[in-house]
Amino acid sequence: MENREALLLEPGKIQVFPCEMPVIQDDEVLVKMEYCGVCGSDVHYFRFGGIGRRKVTFPYVLGHECTGEVLEIGSKVTNVTVGDKVVMEPGLGCGHCEYCMTGRYNLCEDMKFMATPPYNGAFKKYMAYPARGCFKLPESVSTLEGAMIEPLAVGMHAARRGEVDNSKVVLITGMGCIGLMTLLSCKAMNAQKIIVTDIFQNRLEKALELGADYAINVAETDMLEKLKELTDEKGADVVFETAGRAQTAAQNVFAVRRGGVIVQVGTIADPVPYQFNELGKIEADIRSVFRYRNIFPLAIKLIEKGDIDLKAVDPDIFDFEDVDKAFDTAINRGNEVVKCILKF
Amino acid sequence: MENREALLLEPGKIQVFPCEMPVIQDDEVLVKMEYCGVCGSDVHYFRFGGIGRRKVTFPYVLGHECTGEVLEIGSKVTNVTVGDKVVMEPGLGCGHCEYCMTGRYNLCEDMKFMATPPYNGAFKKYMAYPARGCFKLPESVSTLEGAMIEPLAVGMHAARRGEVDNSKVVLITGMGCIGLMTLLSCKAMNAQKIIVTDIFQNRLEKALELGADYAINVAETDMLEKLKELTDEKGADVVFETAGRAQTAAQNVFAVRRGGVIVQVGTIADPVPYQFNELGKIEADIRSVFRYRNIFPLAIKLIEKGDIDLKAVDPDIFDFEDVDKAFDTAINRGNEVVKCILKF
Amino acid sequence: MENREALLLEPGKIQVFPCEMPVIQDDEVLVKMEYCGVCGSDVHYFRFGGIGRRKVTFPYVLGHECTGEVLEIGSKVTNVTVGDKVVMEPGLGCGHCEYCMTGRYNLCEDMKFMATPPYNGAFKKYMAYPARGCFKLPESVSTLEGAMIEPLAVGMHAARRGEVDNSKVVLITGMGCIGLMTLLSCKAMNAQKIIVTDIFQNRLEKALELGADYAINVAETDMLEKLKELTDEKGADVVFETAGRAQTAAQNVFAVRRGGVIVQVGTIADPVPYQFNELGKIEADIRSVFRYRNIFPLAIKLIEKGDIDLKAVDPDIFDFEDVDKAFDTAINRGNEVVKCILKF
Amino acid sequence: MENREALLLEPGKIQVFPCEMPVIQDDEVLVKMEYCGVCGSDVHYFRFGGIGRRKVTFPYVLGHECTGEVLEIGSKVTNVTVGDKVVMEPGLGCGHCEYCMTGRYNLCEDMKFMATPPYNGAFKKYMAYPARGCFKLPESVSTLEGAMIEPLAVGMHAARRGEVDNSKVVLITGMGCIGLMTLLSCKAMNAQKIIVTDIFQNRLEKALELGADYAINVAETDMLEKLKELTDEKGADVVFETAGRAQTAAQNVFAVRRGGVIVQVGTIADPVPYQFNELGKIEADIRSVFRYRNIFPLAIKLIEKGDIDLKAVDPDIFDFEDVDKAFDTAINRGNEVVKCILKF
Repeated sequence: MENREALLLEPGKIQVFPCEMPVIQDDEVLVKMEYCGVCGSDVHYFRFGGIGRRKVTFPYVLGHECTGEVLEIGSKVTNVTVGDKVVMEPGLGCGHCEYCMTGRYNLCEDMKFMATPPYNGAFKKYMAYPARGCFKLPESVSTLEGAMIEPLAVGMHAARRGEVDNSKVVLITGMGCIGLMTLLSCKAMNAQKIIVTDIFQNRLEKALELGADYAINVAETDMLEKLKELTDEKGADVVFETAGRAQTAAQNVFAVRRGGVIVQVGTIADPVPYQFNELGKIEADIRSVFRYRNIFPLAIKLIEKGDIDLKAVDPDIFDFEDVDKAFDTAINRGNEVVKCILKF
Repeated sequence: MENREALLLEPGKIQVFPCEMPVIQDDEVLVKMEYCGVCGSDVHYFRFGGIGRRKVTFPYVLGHECTGEVLEIGSKVTNVTVGDKVVMEPGLGCGHCEYCMTGRYNLCEDMKFMATPPYNGAFKKYMAYPARGCFKLPESVSTLEGAMIEPLAVGMHAARRGEVDNSKVVLITGMGCIGLMTLLSCKAMNAQKIIVTDIFQNRLEKALELGADYAINVAETDMLEKLKELTDEKGADVVFETAGRAQTAAQNVFAVRRGGVIVQVGTIADPVPYQFNELGKIEADIRSVFRYRNIFPLAIKLIEKGDIDLKAVDPDIFDFEDVDKAFDTAINRGNEVVKCILKF
Repeated sequence: MENREALLLEPGKIQVFPCEMPVIQDDEVLVKMEYCGVCGSDVHYFRFGGIGRRKVTFPYVLGHECTGEVLEIGSKVTNVTVGDKVVMEPGLGCGHCEYCMTGRYNLCEDMKFMATPPYNGAFKKYMAYPARGCFKLPESVSTLEGAMIEPLAVGMHAARRGEVDNSKVVLITGMGCIGLMTLLSCKAMNAQKIIVTDIFQNRLEKALELGADYAINVAETDMLEKLKELTDEKGADVVFETAGRAQTAAQNVFAVRRGGVIVQVGTIADPVPYQFNELGKIEADIRSVFRYRNIFPLAIKLIEKGDIDLKAVDPDIFDFEDVDKAFDTAINRGNEVVKCILKF
Repeated sequence: MENREALLLEPGKIQVFPCEMPVIQDDEVLVKMEYCGVCGSDVHYFRFGGIGRRKVTFPYVLGHECTGEVLEIGSKVTNVTVGDKVVMEPGLGCGHCEYCMTGRYNLCEDMKFMATPPYNGAFKKYMAYPARGCFKLPESVSTLEGAMIEPLAVGMHAARRGEVDNSKVVLITGMGCIGLMTLLSCKAMNAQKIIVTDIFQNRLEKALELGADYAINVAETDMLEKLKELTDEKGADVVFETAGRAQTAAQNVFAVRRGGVIVQVGTIADPVPYQFNELGKIEADIRSVFRYRNIFPLAIKLIEKGDIDLKAVDPDIFDFEDVDKAFDTAINRGNEVVKCILKF
């Protein structure tokens, strides 16, 4: 077995090279990669070599949305076995800090997260990984679907933070990959009504196909006016901002109903001119999300049960050796494709 | 009995005039006013004749922090009786809407709130008021203390929204009246540590006197640096912004710890340039507050028990007939006095 | 218009008599009854003239699961209008007490509840009722379905108290009317898996038809053993006892998983020999339910949306004049029929 | 250094013997024991050789409420250092299961807990223990106080489960060690009023000394009647059963107020004849507790701050070599002493 990995050599330049086969520890498994998605953060690192103050050291390995087959297991591993198809949760907490001990391990300050400097990622044919980060996929869930569990987890965590249930009218602004995953998550929580927005009609159509009740093209329609019409003038119980745009974030305070909740999912580099007095008048809350926690096992069950259909997301598949084309597509045709995934 | 009321004739001009004695309904009581505080909103209406889109119609009666003695009760009144000293909760919900039915009556869209247009306020010697808005004061709680229960309720509601308990390190930015009330409220919830900030040393000293553990003068000290020092580098579990200043609000995202909560109490007219990406990195939440709900009975009990000492707040007392002087003081010596209260 | 009402003359004897037409107050509506269900509590009052210490005074009017058409409205009524089809929430809180003010009006000590002594019920052709207790049915929801909203509300409240969501495996013991309503409610919250039990096969088949995932006939199968098999040895996340049997209640502590929740819905007259040490070993909780609160508007929406199909419950319909036959069926063929409903 | 340990040779027979010095692992520390308390469970194992189905294998080492000085640390240890005084949390979860990952590690099925078969306890002079189970005591907290943190944690966890705050009137039935610890915990959460019961006057006096507001001697006074008097006829918001007696547990449903919470802390071997219909009428809940989770760091802070005074508990101290006398006292004079602690 010869191992190969995709190295980011400098901003904009990625190439596949041979590399050493990993040797597993007692509590690790050897995974033969099958699929690995390209995340927005991968694209950002690819283009700029860093996100904010977090810089990569070249050469660097991207990728953290991955599935594969277990080839080998360490002597202490009990949760998976050779031959299992698994999805890997890319972040692992220290296990001992206050956050890990209270179940909020996504806030662990010593989190090791794939493809987040200084840790390398999963764009490699063979990879050793702690067994506790591997979750077995049942037969009915393919490794292609599995490779979308990580972004789905972001949506599910956001939906949980928004306390969505069958009494809640939901607005999701932005129908990129994370917006769609949030939609699928709200759907699986049986939200009363799901209203989505975007400026691209193809995205809105995909959203309607995935279960949105109403789609508003904000390039053509006054969103707040339409929203009022759809909600008996009340606004949405829960608003998810996934577009990552300052303008959308600033506007959402007028979209949420009295006593409602805004979940800020998208990352916004610039300061948002925010009208907190409007927020206060209606005693609404803003909740932020950082990745997810304790979601993978549930995600697998909901996919298996058919409550969430990731196949319908219809990602674009690229051969691992064509990793550069995947990035090219993600960057230049981002509005047309929901998700680029590498096949090994 | 001759009734008298203070009329706001135009912005900046307030004067006491004789007026008719009210006639009570079956479910109302007649209150002989003893004390009524001057709120920041009263001052705003006094100066500008409105707050945002909410304009007063002149002549207008201000005042909503009031206590008095029950002189007469309607035929259906059972909760208070003649001779009782009472504090009046100035806002009453419709009782039937979704918000009232689920206990969040402060969000009722048909709320009748004293001194909030179109409703007149309590700067009058005799006043009819629904009995359900009157709460009996025990003998050990004076009507002077009682007149501070309304602003205290704002602080208590904020502290509840912040889920303060004995495990939480609390930061309160701004030691004006509401900041102090929030401090007293957190103290009564036995917060683990209470750190307060202001730019006026006299206010900080008052805060220390009322129970703050640390006071930071942000005119002299780097708040974030000092805060880190006081919190093992973690930041505060709960941050209350009561200063109502954009700069403070923008800074607080760096003051709250990972997974913590910011409660935005102060009203900020201008948009705040907010770094939501920083909020997201630590998965912190922002909660806003609109007045309070279901607080008066508890406030009375905590004062009676001695857990909250409103006497120590040491307000400035003005004769009702000198209402203009009270406003003058509130406007021109606002940094020196915590609270101006009219005595009838 | 001639009014008629069914009078319970003594235990076991009910008969329809002419009665006066009601005159509505300003805040009331006149309803021409269309359907009214027979509840288990109606049957109990019918047979024994009381429930526990609560005794009826004869003659007495039963019935509280009712729908009809609005014939007339009082001058202050705004939420419904003449011609509307409405469902009536049979209990109305005082609106002022601590429970009402905090949204838990079902605990109001001055609750006026139809067919609960000293208040008479709804087995009458024309009835005056406070408008705030009337909820308009949309065109797609019939008054026959509407007459089952009250028992559905019991199930929905129980499911809410159990905090059911898509991660929870649910066990419902007893598939009588309330058991089925709890099942429908859990289904509408998208519970991960719903396991139901009963000793009657026809009830279990109805449950499977209404969406249960597994049905266990406890007359033939060892429930705890089967449950373990269905839950990876863990037990159920949430257990609902709706059978109202001491034996079932006592057993459920072995059916719930570590850290899980038992919701005690059924009424059990006798003391249950309860092993609290077993409850403590797994830190499980028991929550009880008393009727429901703030459920009717949501129930209507879920039925309208198709998330809850009350038509499938397939009640037995009796002409109002045959009210005695309805009771006879409810008593003697209770295992065969889910619900007896009177048609006016 | 010669090590010594107390061995339970058979029920009722315990003796100190020399034993080997432990060798620490990389992530462990060597602790020189200073104090170790005798828990009710130790006494039960001592007398009967088991608790329920859980049997000890003789010889067996009891003890799990322990503090000492760190003599040596493993190479990976960073949270404590040589010379630190530490308290040891006696139970450590697996770190990987669903319960550990969601912060409820006390429910971990692979929990290793001192002095709970098959694991031995802490009645030994020198002991190796994982560093993650050691918490440094500040200078102002003695190791004698520290040895009472474990039972305090039980009380604090119970109080948390009861959601005690300054609005809650609390009833604690039973003023044995855990009852007193629950009292101290409720006090540190600033409960509005704390009412305690017992049949021994000396225990009630100790409770009053530790901060109870009212003490009811149930051997002389009708508890329910007195409670009504003390709570405006309402009953307690939160009731803690710590007596571990069936009669008390059965009675508490009449002591809790409408919508209130009962926390069942005491272990009751026999089935309790429980009137669930009474529980349902008032929609009250029963919560059980299994040990505690994430409490030690907070407990240390509250003691350091002076909010909890464990010195006032005034335990009886026995020399380690007189371990048999400690058990003799715990068994035969249990009503007179709050806590027996071994000194090394």
